[in-house]
Amino acid sequence: MNHTGQLFRVSTFGESHGAGIGALVDGLPAGVFIDLEFIRQEMQRRKPGQSAIVTQRTEEDEVQILSGVFEQYSTGAPIALWIANQDAKSKDYSHLKDTFRPSHADFTYHQKYKGFRDYQGGGRASARETAARVAAGALAKLWLNQFGVQIKAYTSQIGHIGLTYPCPEAEALLFAAGYQEHITRCPIAEKGDEMELFIKKIRKEGDTVGGLITCVVKNVPVGWGEPVFGKLHAELGKAILNIHACKGFEYGSGFAGVAMRGSQHNDILTTQSGKISTQTNHSGGIQGGISNGEDIYFRAAFKPVATILQPQNSINTQSQPVTVAGKGRHDPCVIPRAVPIVEAATAMVLADMSLLFLSQQQHFYPNKATN
Amino acid sequence: MNHTGQLFRVSTFGESHGAGIGALVDGLPAGVFIDLEFIRQEMQRRKPGQSAIVTQRTEEDEVQILSGVFEQYSTGAPIALWIANQDAKSKDYSHLKDTFRPSHADFTYHQKYKGFRDYQGGGRASARETAARVAAGALAKLWLNQFGVQIKAYTSQIGHIGLTYPCPEAEALLFAAGYQEHITRCPIAEKGDEMELFIKKIRKEGDTVGGLITCVVKNVPVGWGEPVFGKLHAELGKAILNIHACKGFEYGSGFAGVAMRGSQHNDILTTQSGKISTQTNHSGGIQGGISNGEDIYFRAAFKPVATILQPQNSINTQSQPVTVAGKGRHDPCVIPRAVPIVEAATAMVLADMSLLFLSQQQHFYPNKATN
Amino acid sequence: MNHTGQLFRVSTFGESHGAGIGALVDGLPAGVFIDLEFIRQEMQRRKPGQSAIVTQRTEEDEVQILSGVFEQYSTGAPIALWIANQDAKSKDYSHLKDTFRPSHADFTYHQKYKGFRDYQGGGRASARETAARVAAGALAKLWLNQFGVQIKAYTSQIGHIGLTYPCPEAEALLFAAGYQEHITRCPIAEKGDEMELFIKKIRKEGDTVGGLITCVVKNVPVGWGEPVFGKLHAELGKAILNIHACKGFEYGSGFAGVAMRGSQHNDILTTQSGKISTQTNHSGGIQGGISNGEDIYFRAAFKPVATILQPQNSINTQSQPVTVAGKGRHDPCVIPRAVPIVEAATAMVLADMSLLFLSQQQHFYPNKATN
Amino acid sequence: MNHTGQLFRVSTFGESHGAGIGALVDGLPAGVFIDLEFIRQEMQRRKPGQSAIVTQRTEEDEVQILSGVFEQYSTGAPIALWIANQDAKSKDYSHLKDTFRPSHADFTYHQKYKGFRDYQGGGRASARETAARVAAGALAKLWLNQFGVQIKAYTSQIGHIGLTYPCPEAEALLFAAGYQEHITRCPIAEKGDEMELFIKKIRKEGDTVGGLITCVVKNVPVGWGEPVFGKLHAELGKAILNIHACKGFEYGSGFAGVAMRGSQHNDILTTQSGKISTQTNHSGGIQGGISNGEDIYFRAAFKPVATILQPQNSINTQSQPVTVAGKGRHDPCVIPRAVPIVEAATAMVLADMSLLFLSQQQHFYPNKATN
Repeated sequence: MNHTGQLFRVSTFGESHGAGIGALVDGLPAGVFIDLEFIRQEMQRRKPGQSAIVTQRTEEDEVQILSGVFEQYSTGAPIALWIANQDAKSKDYSHLKDTFRPSHADFTYHQKYKGFRDYQGGGRASARETAARVAAGALAKLWLNQFGVQIKAYTSQIGHIGLTYPCPEAEALLFAAGYQEHITRCPIAEKGDEMELFIKKIRKEGDTVGGLITCVVKNVPVGWGEPVFGKLHAELGKAILNIHACKGFEYGSGFAGVAMRGSQHNDILTTQSGKISTQTNHSGGIQGGISNGEDIYFRAAFKPVATILQPQNSINTQSQPVTVAGKGRHDPCVIPRAVPIVEAATAMVLADMSLLFLSQQQHFYPNKATN
Repeated sequence: MNHTGQLFRVSTFGESHGAGIGALVDGLPAGVFIDLEFIRQEMQRRKPGQSAIVTQRTEEDEVQILSGVFEQYSTGAPIALWIANQDAKSKDYSHLKDTFRPSHADFTYHQKYKGFRDYQGGGRASARETAARVAAGALAKLWLNQFGVQIKAYTSQIGHIGLTYPCPEAEALLFAAGYQEHITRCPIAEKGDEMELFIKKIRKEGDTVGGLITCVVKNVPVGWGEPVFGKLHAELGKAILNIHACKGFEYGSGFAGVAMRGSQHNDILTTQSGKISTQTNHSGGIQGGISNGEDIYFRAAFKPVATILQPQNSINTQSQPVTVAGKGRHDPCVIPRAVPIVEAATAMVLADMSLLFLSQQQHFYPNKATN
Repeated sequence: MNHTGQLFRVSTFGESHGAGIGALVDGLPAGVFIDLEFIRQEMQRRKPGQSAIVTQRTEEDEVQILSGVFEQYSTGAPIALWIANQDAKSKDYSHLKDTFRPSHADFTYHQKYKGFRDYQGGGRASARETAARVAAGALAKLWLNQFGVQIKAYTSQIGHIGLTYPCPEAEALLFAAGYQEHITRCPIAEKGDEMELFIKKIRKEGDTVGGLITCVVKNVPVGWGEPVFGKLHAELGKAILNIHACKGFEYGSGFAGVAMRGSQHNDILTTQSGKISTQTNHSGGIQGGISNGEDIYFRAAFKPVATILQPQNSINTQSQPVTVAGKGRHDPCVIPRAVPIVEAATAMVLADMSLLFLSQQQHFYPNKATN
Repeated sequence: MNHTGQLFRVSTFGESHGAGIGALVDGLPAGVFIDLEFIRQEMQRRKPGQSAIVTQRTEEDEVQILSGVFEQYSTGAPIALWIANQDAKSKDYSHLKDTFRPSHADFTYHQKYKGFRDYQGGGRASARETAARVAAGALAKLWLNQFGVQIKAYTSQIGHIGLTYPCPEAEALLFAAGYQEHITRCPIAEKGDEMELFIKKIRKEGDTVGGLITCVVKNVPVGWGEPVFGKLHAELGKAILNIHACKGFEYGSGFAGVAMRGSQHNDILTTQSGKISTQTNHSGGIQGGISNGEDIYFRAAFKPVATILQPQNSINTQSQPVTVAGKGRHDPCVIPRAVPIVEAATAMVLADMSLLFLSQQQHFYPNKATN
């Protein structure tokens, strides 16, 4: 299944070395100004070839809008977004036709799809598919703007070089006016420089490395998220885990919260000048699966990219041993480019939750909550 | 939304202090033997009052089957499961009618549902709702039996007392014939005893503590899981994060994989006596979101329970400061009782994925994969 | 699949001769007053044994609310409704264990569900299942009340005895204050008497007969219904065709519109005292799949009930010829009892569409429509 | 919502006078040969300008496959189909910017989408959108081929000139080898000639006329269709009613069945040479919502097209009276071009039902049905 969301519904399609990559966004309400320049900027943050520490494949990743927008506003009709592939060098992959690369989706796709698969550049399984998510996420962000929602992710660790979680210092910079992203997307420049050097070293070794991304969301209204099976953090977790190479997700106190006592962990509710807030935020802005108005924050773990330039043992479709080595142009570390993808996935979930929330708020009866 | 799954679809209903808790399971194929004794055993593992380290509320949690089973076999019709509440002492909660307990869903439900909420025992937000998931999960396990799928979770940490992740020693015990669960559900008895003492100490202090649960799944066939937005680990992550108090999820190498190099992390494919396997399993049995036949394993973090017996500051529905202290019978630590819930959530996801897989496997054309 | 609706989601469960019949309603917003007396009245209109021209099975069809209602108001949690079976005489059906009754679902269920089926009283395929729809429809009506939506269906034909379509005379009576339903549910008493005599004659012959039901809905706001694949009339058509024995559906001008010219059929828009309306209503209140504010009306065809008391030839599960004759208590004509079912199905669709509509109406941007 | 289907899921997008029209097909299993020539032929049957009795807009309606197909076979990835608009004369519509055409979706879209709509050529509401359905339906037919399923629709009435329902004579011709479609798509040539003359007369008058389409499906296996809310005929009815201008749907005996007695209407089951069949087929191949192996047949009513060249009264967006007359190139009668659309809608439903069926058929337990 290649779609997600219930009311803000995104489907993606396309292959890494096919004609292009697309997204179909169904459910964006009519009347949203479609800011093409904003979409372009979001795509720039994810595109390959943007800096010296990412893959040198060059794709402009220009987004064409095929439908659903009229005189620059959404009409409520589905919006198809299309990103043509330009620099697809399929010959880089011909040696992989019958080979399963270690820790790739080659073997599982081959089995699941009965041998019918586009082996070029990972085909449908390629991280190139996330270009479509960033484009769809940009539409979600345009919708969320009206609520004042701000979604910002940043690199919090590369290999062993990392920031604390959460990291108030980094977040203060991140939300400051005029913030400029470091090449690594780590807000604290010194750490970023250190990470950059490390990535360059890893690349020289023909190897890859993983990292962590932290995301903070401000101004989510109280009440978003569904109880039981659609908890806000569970929907976020699913969206983030659906990103390539993601191996873990934690929100609020996360794994560290395990060793705390309830008396330490509980967030005390207070009222100041009529506004309800909590003294601490171990809950990560979500209680019982529903946003409580505090900052939402979470962290995601990404493993090192599977494609390395060093030779590795593997097998082919005839189950015979072979040796494979990555050709083509690959990322030594996906973290910097994954930052806008994390934001896009977050935006899609929040857009969906906002529409679910709105569908339930009509009431003609006396409203007990505001009495 | 109170339902989950696309083809194996589970809805739950009911409140902690209402008439009871139920689950509706739609999509279990016809012809599955409904083993009532097995369902009863699963319920016993989750039920309150089962041991000295859990809440002393006494509920037999007997499951009535209201529909969908005829002469002990599933008919393909929806199966409604009903667990009547017996020991609901609603008066324990009357003091909470207008009070928001810290780190509970009281405040967010109150806002989202416009003041209309069942405040007794947490109402719909209570962890009592998970009784329905365990019952539905038991049906999922009965379905999965035919594939040989085995799902076993265990307590891997309480507070600061923990096992490694993964923990081959614990897992060897777990899957051994005649395995008996420790009161804490930690397979290594000495660690379990230590945990037990710690939980008792915490309870005496009127406090609570969190922990970790690890889950291992054996014999999942190759090919389960959907690409892009329905990756197997993302569906598992969502299901686990939807369990009360869960704050984090990692699978395979998880957060630790971040610091590894690609050359270390990649799982080399080999063939032995015709069977394809991987030399290591950092992938946690899943590649590209699709099962690869190796063991699936993951770990989940649970925060300390919010209800503590110590007095805490909070506010009421009029935004005035109040003091609250838990009354009633509560768990000092949910981990032991959450183990069967983790298994149930896992079973539901796998049952759903198995049906999605089966729907796609028909083919009259030559099957390239098996040529 | 035993559920319907996207946001106002209804699942039904239960068998004709099992423990009972239930409905699970997920998505009713919080704050709706749950009028038990209204639900009871709706059930009375469908229940068996209510008059001399329907089956003499006696079921009180009392609805128990198992969840989701607190202090008489909906809480936003799923509402489980349960109707216990009381007068199920399963021995009436033991002769059918291995027999396929002509034009019943016996054969198709047997094949689809691999021989695992509850043969008693039709099991899951029994029209008794519609009791759950009437209960769920009553909740939908309670929600729709706040919009002023009024849904009224009536018997417009029994066998060859019928009213025109549409029938303004009947509809004037139907919506008049103090309207009392005729035993046949035909608003024009003389026609109703004629129909009643005809049904009694058919019953005496051990036979059955079909009929037509017309439904009129007033006060649906402009804008309900989705374009393309969720057109309002298509959702209504699906809901009505999902009722047992329904063979056809038409709305607005319907089949008769085929022979009209565009110049006759088009509904001219006019404005009177600021209110936009159409001079005619061949469109049946729906244009492009979206409600236009005029009355919605449609008609549904129901075949004669398959169970007749006369002996018929058939085959058994061993494909051998057998003779079957209905035993038990059956309806000679389902039309009078199907009237509230048609209303319930309509109400569920409209409730779902109302929530979809509301989810899309938020806007902070200038609203062009009201400029 | 612009998507349909649960496992064979089709979304369409695009506007009549935008860049083009597209369909996204998600769920077609891997390994289906994608016969481009077949898709082209299906498009030819629907395309405008194909004959003297349809609109003279000239669109080649060439389908581009953007994704999901590799070396001519489906890969299991979503297939995006794109049909660029070529002959869109938007200036034909500039006079309609602020005008609501009678019986069009102009008014309802304007209200629902808050004034943000593409008024050109009907925008999203245009019947041009059905080009995407025909393309998606062609993929569904390619999938269904392997089961031997044959879907054939034909014109059974234009205005007052019609065939019986069902019409064995027409159907014998329709399924005969070497069948060539008449310009009107009526299989009986004399009737077709009469219809053609009538359409030409109507066109000369600047008017339009409606008609009926009958569809017959052969070789559907026993067991397709879901009970209760996903009955096969209800899904078909919904799909057909979602086609532009459709006002009614009946299957099997349909509206005529109303006046029959049960003893006449019941289809007697018999066995001949081991094959189970029914002596009559009033059930239209479906019992209890599930296919029984007999021919499925149904009929659909289409109203006259709303756009006529004669001047008509209407109102504009300021609620002022205006006069409108169709400009541009329109169909005097949609029936001939709607025939392939009916087939496509049918194919999509059947493809979806086939996958749902397959998902439920796995069983390791003894199969009672085949004992």
